[in-house]
Amino acid sequence: MTNSQQAPARILIAGAGAIGAFYGAALQAAGAEVSVACRSEYETVREHGYRIHSGQLGERQLRPAQTLRSVAGYQGGAPDYLVLCVKVVEGVDRVALIRGAVGPDTAIVLIENGIEIEQEIAQAFPGNELISALAFVQASRVAPGEVRHFAFGALTFGNYPNGVSPCAQRFAALLEAGNVKCTLTENVLAVRWQKCMWNAVFNPISVLGAVLDTDDILGACEGAPLVQRAMQEVCAIAAAAGHPIPAELAAQFIEGTRKAPPYKTSMALDFENARGMEVEAILGNTVRAGRREKVAIPILETLYALLKMVERKAAKIPV
Amino acid sequence: MTNSQQAPARILIAGAGAIGAFYGAALQAAGAEVSVACRSEYETVREHGYRIHSGQLGERQLRPAQTLRSVAGYQGGAPDYLVLCVKVVEGVDRVALIRGAVGPDTAIVLIENGIEIEQEIAQAFPGNELISALAFVQASRVAPGEVRHFAFGALTFGNYPNGVSPCAQRFAALLEAGNVKCTLTENVLAVRWQKCMWNAVFNPISVLGAVLDTDDILGACEGAPLVQRAMQEVCAIAAAAGHPIPAELAAQFIEGTRKAPPYKTSMALDFENARGMEVEAILGNTVRAGRREKVAIPILETLYALLKMVERKAAKIPV
Repeated sequence: MTNSQQAPARILIAGAGAIGAFYGAALQAAGAEVSVACRSEYETVREHGYRIHSGQLGERQLRPAQTLRSVAGYQGGAPDYLVLCVKVVEGVDRVALIRGAVGPDTAIVLIENGIEIEQEIAQAFPGNELISALAFVQASRVAPGEVRHFAFGALTFGNYPNGVSPCAQRFAALLEAGNVKCTLTENVLAVRWQKCMWNAVFNPISVLGAVLDTDDILGACEGAPLVQRAMQEVCAIAAAAGHPIPAELAAQFIEGTRKAPPYKTSMALDFENARGMEVEAILGNTVRAGRREKVAIPILETLYALLKMVERKAAKIPV
Repeated sequence: MTNSQQAPARILIAGAGAIGAFYGAALQAAGAEVSVACRSEYETVREHGYRIHSGQLGERQLRPAQTLRSVAGYQGGAPDYLVLCVKVVEGVDRVALIRGAVGPDTAIVLIENGIEIEQEIAQAFPGNELISALAFVQASRVAPGEVRHFAFGALTFGNYPNGVSPCAQRFAALLEAGNVKCTLTENVLAVRWQKCMWNAVFNPISVLGAVLDTDDILGACEGAPLVQRAMQEVCAIAAAAGHPIPAELAAQFIEGTRKAPPYKTSMALDFENARGMEVEAILGNTVRAGRREKVAIPILETLYALLKMVERKAAKIPV
């Protein structure tokens, strides 16, 4: 980083939806200079910025320093941090989305779901620091420029493929100053596999039956055993891929989910709202890793095939 | 059979919906004395009988000799054939439904879907001849007393657990005289397993994604391989249960389904119309047979667990 610690960090958030606005507001509250690139909400955000309604953090605002339609319009030199918050779905070229604003000293931060989603970015920007982050947050866009924050909010991150750089530490310090709990990890890929164990199982199942919430899934007698066995398949892949998941975590995830109020996964919400689902990032990449590592994953393969049928059908239906 | 060949066969159809009315009309056309027990359509049927609209067979009628609310009201002695055409779903006590009209010489005919659904009837009526039949027909009730026949119509049957009795032959002769193609089989259980290979795979998948037709299922790249692998699991169970399925049948089923126009399975139609689905008869019994025979069936287990979630959710929603 060439900036001194005194100069405010210059941060550009690409694809600022609910997640980007939520963390952007925290970074701005901590004194960073936060700009955003957003497409569908551009007019509203340029006029009014974002409002984040949160029981936990109170009402927050994000008034971007620069509001852009595309990162290429970013003024004043490259940003210190380019935070990518878009869904990882087909048809979205993430490299093209950020290329216009990545300078030689820009750290790229991915706050995105999915497994093995970093390589593409790392290969396109081999000279840049890459920070991979996992958001544990429930937040939704409720109107243009309006975000509702329901629960949680923590961010776990580290450098890709491993380590924790000073630049990552500075990013954490900013977020903590903005009241976001951060966990820095030397091995972010292992954490990504852990989160994947929940996502790759609950998300697909929640879409089937159009749609099932967590109570529908775990409430049926056959539900928890299926989830448990599917999670064991993810564990086996993660271990084969060099990121073993603690043995007790699956049971803890299931118990935690059972105790929480019933809720719909992001994939279920995307399905209901006829939006693209992160099938490939969350489940497809998991399945391909399993095939590559020669792990038997009949349940995940079944869920994947079913999801691809549903996705194909959804694509046939005009919205 | 105590009746001479000259006397018209006395046939009572219990649960005469689309299937019962379709075969009942054929039997009546062949000169049999056909009566029906039906609940929801009772008033209409007593007044007007059934009308069967069929491109293949022309317009047909069934004017029942006796129209009953329950088989217990059947007059003139026990019937020669008591034909049970109800769906095999929870909450329907099939034994109770027919007990009131089964005499010592009554042959019980099951025209029903599912696997291992005969034992319950055989145990309740150990002295009666039991004929197990599989209908290859597409027909739906379109209004009270009105049935539309779309395609096919053949019936394959034999005695349970095996053999072909003179009584079964007489039943076939009647149906053939009424223009229904019959295939008599010495080993009806093997045929039931063959039909199950299609039903236990396409029916559950069709419900997931609410709902997928056969093109949605086979059109996705991942679709046919999943169907093929799931069918192989059914083959393995059938073989272990002593009813091996010809190796080439799965590929033939898939190819035949692909060539036919896209259509929705009975389970998908039941799901869409908030009716009970034959999850247990078609898939649950298959899965339990697999567990009993210690066959690895991860795909069928996955489909079964997903279906049970969907079924539980459907039961929560008031129609």
